[in-house]
Amino acid sequence: MIFIGERINTGFKDIKQAVLDKDPKPLQEWARKQAEAGANYIDVNLGAVSSKPADMCWMIETVQAAVETPISIDTNKVAILSEAIKACKKPPLLNSTTSSKEKLDPFLEIAGKYGASMIGLAMDESGTPKESAKRVECAGMIASAWLEAGLPMEHLFLDPIVMPLKFMQDQAKEFLEGARQFTMISDPPPHIICGLSNISSKATEKKLINRTFLVMAIANGLDATIADVLDTDLINAARTAELMMNREIYADAYVKV
Amino acid sequence: MIFIGERINTGFKDIKQAVLDKDPKPLQEWARKQAEAGANYIDVNLGAVSSKPADMCWMIETVQAAVETPISIDTNKVAILSEAIKACKKPPLLNSTTSSKEKLDPFLEIAGKYGASMIGLAMDESGTPKESAKRVECAGMIASAWLEAGLPMEHLFLDPIVMPLKFMQDQAKEFLEGARQFTMISDPPPHIICGLSNISSKATEKKLINRTFLVMAIANGLDATIADVLDTDLINAARTAELMMNREIYADAYVKV
Repeated sequence: MIFIGERINTGFKDIKQAVLDKDPKPLQEWARKQAEAGANYIDVNLGAVSSKPADMCWMIETVQAAVETPISIDTNKVAILSEAIKACKKPPLLNSTTSSKEKLDPFLEIAGKYGASMIGLAMDESGTPKESAKRVECAGMIASAWLEAGLPMEHLFLDPIVMPLKFMQDQAKEFLEGARQFTMISDPPPHIICGLSNISSKATEKKLINRTFLVMAIANGLDATIADVLDTDLINAARTAELMMNREIYADAYVKV
Repeated sequence: MIFIGERINTGFKDIKQAVLDKDPKPLQEWARKQAEAGANYIDVNLGAVSSKPADMCWMIETVQAAVETPISIDTNKVAILSEAIKACKKPPLLNSTTSSKEKLDPFLEIAGKYGASMIGLAMDESGTPKESAKRVECAGMIASAWLEAGLPMEHLFLDPIVMPLKFMQDQAKEFLEGARQFTMISDPPPHIICGLSNISSKATEKKLINRTFLVMAIANGLDATIADVLDTDLINAARTAELMMNREIYADAYVKV
């Protein structure tokens, strides 16, 4: 399982304030906590706080001063991405493009140039598809373009796109069906990823909903997630699900306590 | 979701002693607790304590004196089943036969005569298949025989057979793949069920393993389980998974506290 720590995002007040004040402490504290919890990437999201590439670069450099973990550059803006990637010490994860050619092409170019991994959202300029079939079509277009660009499939992450359970209840099944079909896009398959927390948006039982959906997604082939890596119950549920998929070897002491 | 309460089983010491002493109290207490927790059937298992049909009948009558919940008659012995079914006030669940003709035929006859539901295990006289394909073959044979006997598909429960994660780790995937294929056996499909606790046999993290596997099985079409219905975390995980499958309508207060 590949975990991307979601917490360094200006959607959280403490991070927003830290970016405005250029205070490294909160970012570095969250970076350390997430790295210790086993995050494989630290997501860095500047959000709407600023449109200056320099601010994103400051966030990345601040995180890298605290931890060795690679960065997930969370922006769909090419102007920010092209500067941010130069700040990365290790090949990062580009998070994310859609299948829309004008978004996808510059992402492919940057991924190729820097040996980066990339998340492709299974949507195009018309938005998130309601049906799994259209998601599969978008995902297939991204995968084809990725292969045509000569890039390695193990660096591609396809995202069937999670919608909130509370408001779009029928979409969970479409996601799961989409994920299952993504596993057949190539052999070996691309990674399948989701931004998990969206499933529990505005719901009361957020953690229960997050971990239940993650387990169901793993049963359908998902092997990566952007999530709250400090949620031990979530991590343990994911680890258990991976045992069921026979991806990890069972041992009595397989969970963190 | 259809829950069958597993607790009235002489595999548990208190139930064994109660059956030996003909003490109704422990059985009735467990029957009430499981009914209150929402069990749709109360499983009754005489085990190896006795081979007398009268002892099974005593257990069933004792449970029925305490609760209205229908009985799951847990025996593969036709001699016991044919007497036990006469003791049932409501159409029970017959738990269980294999696809082996000499087992299956008398079960079909009894199910037909009493309007009972039935669990068919996806195995034959040669034991539990290692591969999902053979499980599907056995399940298909049971479903065909069920339909040929003119019985309603909504009374048939097919069981892909859970094996212990700790000892047969590759079998969880075979179960899940089997379950998924069982959903395609007919339209509408039969129920898909499992004896859940077997997945965590001899494991340390029993409850975590049980609920994780149940959620993954629901993602693959399972809609019934014989389980510890007093495990609130398990029930809540199952209810959450059912929301994801769009089988129940989301409400903020959907879980028991």
